[in-house]
Amino acid sequence: MAMARTAPNRLPIALTMGEPAGIGVEIAIKAWFRRAMHDLSPFYLIADPDHVRATVRRLTALDTRLRSTPVLAEIKNPSEAVDCFDQALPIYPQPLKCKVQPGKLNKANASSVLKSIEQAVAHVRSGMALALVTNPIQKSVLYDAGFAHPGHTEFLAELCGGEHIPVMMLSCPDLKAVPVTIHMPLCDAMACLTTEMIVERALITATALSQDLGYEPPRLAVAGLNPHAGEGGDLGTTENTIIQPAIDELRTRGIKVIGPLPADSMFRAAARRTYDAAICMYHDQALIPVKVLGFEYGVNTTLGLPIVRTSPDHGTALDIADQGCANAQSLISALAYAGFMARHRAKTAHEA
Amino acid sequence: MAMARTAPNRLPIALTMGEPAGIGVEIAIKAWFRRAMHDLSPFYLIADPDHVRATVRRLTALDTRLRSTPVLAEIKNPSEAVDCFDQALPIYPQPLKCKVQPGKLNKANASSVLKSIEQAVAHVRSGMALALVTNPIQKSVLYDAGFAHPGHTEFLAELCGGEHIPVMMLSCPDLKAVPVTIHMPLCDAMACLTTEMIVERALITATALSQDLGYEPPRLAVAGLNPHAGEGGDLGTTENTIIQPAIDELRTRGIKVIGPLPADSMFRAAARRTYDAAICMYHDQALIPVKVLGFEYGVNTTLGLPIVRTSPDHGTALDIADQGCANAQSLISALAYAGFMARHRAKTAHEA
Repeated sequence: MAMARTAPNRLPIALTMGEPAGIGVEIAIKAWFRRAMHDLSPFYLIADPDHVRATVRRLTALDTRLRSTPVLAEIKNPSEAVDCFDQALPIYPQPLKCKVQPGKLNKANASSVLKSIEQAVAHVRSGMALALVTNPIQKSVLYDAGFAHPGHTEFLAELCGGEHIPVMMLSCPDLKAVPVTIHMPLCDAMACLTTEMIVERALITATALSQDLGYEPPRLAVAGLNPHAGEGGDLGTTENTIIQPAIDELRTRGIKVIGPLPADSMFRAAARRTYDAAICMYHDQALIPVKVLGFEYGVNTTLGLPIVRTSPDHGTALDIADQGCANAQSLISALAYAGFMARHRAKTAHEA
Repeated sequence: MAMARTAPNRLPIALTMGEPAGIGVEIAIKAWFRRAMHDLSPFYLIADPDHVRATVRRLTALDTRLRSTPVLAEIKNPSEAVDCFDQALPIYPQPLKCKVQPGKLNKANASSVLKSIEQAVAHVRSGMALALVTNPIQKSVLYDAGFAHPGHTEFLAELCGGEHIPVMMLSCPDLKAVPVTIHMPLCDAMACLTTEMIVERALITATALSQDLGYEPPRLAVAGLNPHAGEGGDLGTTENTIIQPAIDELRTRGIKVIGPLPADSMFRAAARRTYDAAICMYHDQALIPVKVLGFEYGVNTTLGLPIVRTSPDHGTALDIADQGCANAQSLISALAYAGFMARHRAKTAHEA
């Protein structure tokens, strides 16, 4: 007899520990405290219970805004998280090898960081969790411990089976932006840019906007690469040779798309109202406007995977890891976004 | 007997006509209507009186918000502008060859456009006007008529004697940004970037911030070129080989400067409070954040010239030139900025 899958609104979100010497556990606790104010879906943290308790003690001593001591609930199965979430922060145990010193990286704990991610992906893929939210990791310490991926996103794509093209989307309340090239020197980004890459990322983006976010039909805007989008060829030819053919191809495939737009003016308010997501040619072209418009609310979403995954749009913040002052807003936005997307995806699949 | 120079607060600002088929005269009239609300210093428009009258008639018919018909005062000398400004928009005549059709370029009028600029520069250089504000021009029609400069800015530098390095600064109320490379393909910008260029532009910027805007000492922030400012060399080496040496040289010269900063996070509010102007490596790195933060209030300022010059941060808007809906806010900001800078420069020179 086939088991009925649990309804999406009865599934919790899996949240990874991230780098234990960073602010991940601190912001998870703060997000749980603000669960009612932000109407957050239940989530559980995959982390070492001793480390979470130590963080609670530190925060209670440091940050008077917590007011009360959070209650922790160790769970053995994600299914327990939903029922206890109102009263306690559910912790799915993932022991660390060494005691954490805030701000001090320790590669002895790297395997636990990776296991927390693997466990979370396994929970979501097996239908025990609704979506994945990852706390920031410190790649350098993972590389030292043998991690062989360029970053979080590629690791997740492999855990999801390897045949998927992960696409990074940065969001804040006023803008969604997808960089076609990402973590490489700007000159390499320009050299490797192709029509096919733009089309591929744009199609994945359009699918996600429709399937996960309810834009019907989704409207894309493609940025130019050069000043004034090349000014008709006088300030560069990439728009004519690479970007315009991608736009033509997207239109052939029925996508609503405008561009190539001058990057300097396409992010002002009046222009943003004409599209749902901006397809950008390089990292900073996408990240500058998102961070100017909503730095604290930034969410990093991976599109194109069989699971919904979001992440706060900041790093491990080792420099403030022992101060209790970390801002949980980006994680709260990531949790809210993941819940919304996963439920919308389930609804879309149900209706199909 | 040497003539005493007129006190700065008794000098008007010279405003050029810009492309007559564009919105320049329309926004000049609208700015004059709002002179009291914005406490604008007196200015006069160098334009064809018949064209201004025709624009007034069109605006009066189209734009009910004007309420009353503006009064025009033809002047023979800039010195007349200050006394009549409260009652009338002063027009210093510069006849056009052909009647203007809004939105339709006509190269027969190109020489008048250029003469308006030459006349304005002559007025400021001879001490008859306080500062120069230029309305947008359409370069293509000027090129067709024999104009041989890459743009407005280079033409002004030549009119000022040719020995000056003009530096473009974009400003809005929340940010000042100076692109070190400007109107060229992005790959050319990266190829031509040198330590010397960064140092030179940064020094001119620091001088202007101090002399014209009252920042003492001015604080500069230099952007990186690559994602995450190269992430210690993993995402590009320009920061190490070109940008850091420029910062070192600037510090040697006593300039307060930070960087290379990751461009994606340096424009958020908390980061902006740590510097007075951002030195950017390419056009869109500077223009994206300025236009996101204050599109309507954007001002383009040319630093490094013996005269103060500003301009609204938009184009000729030929597409809306016959509609009466052009927004004058950027020109109003440019007029206010020019007045402030010129008076501050005069005060600095007086005290020196």
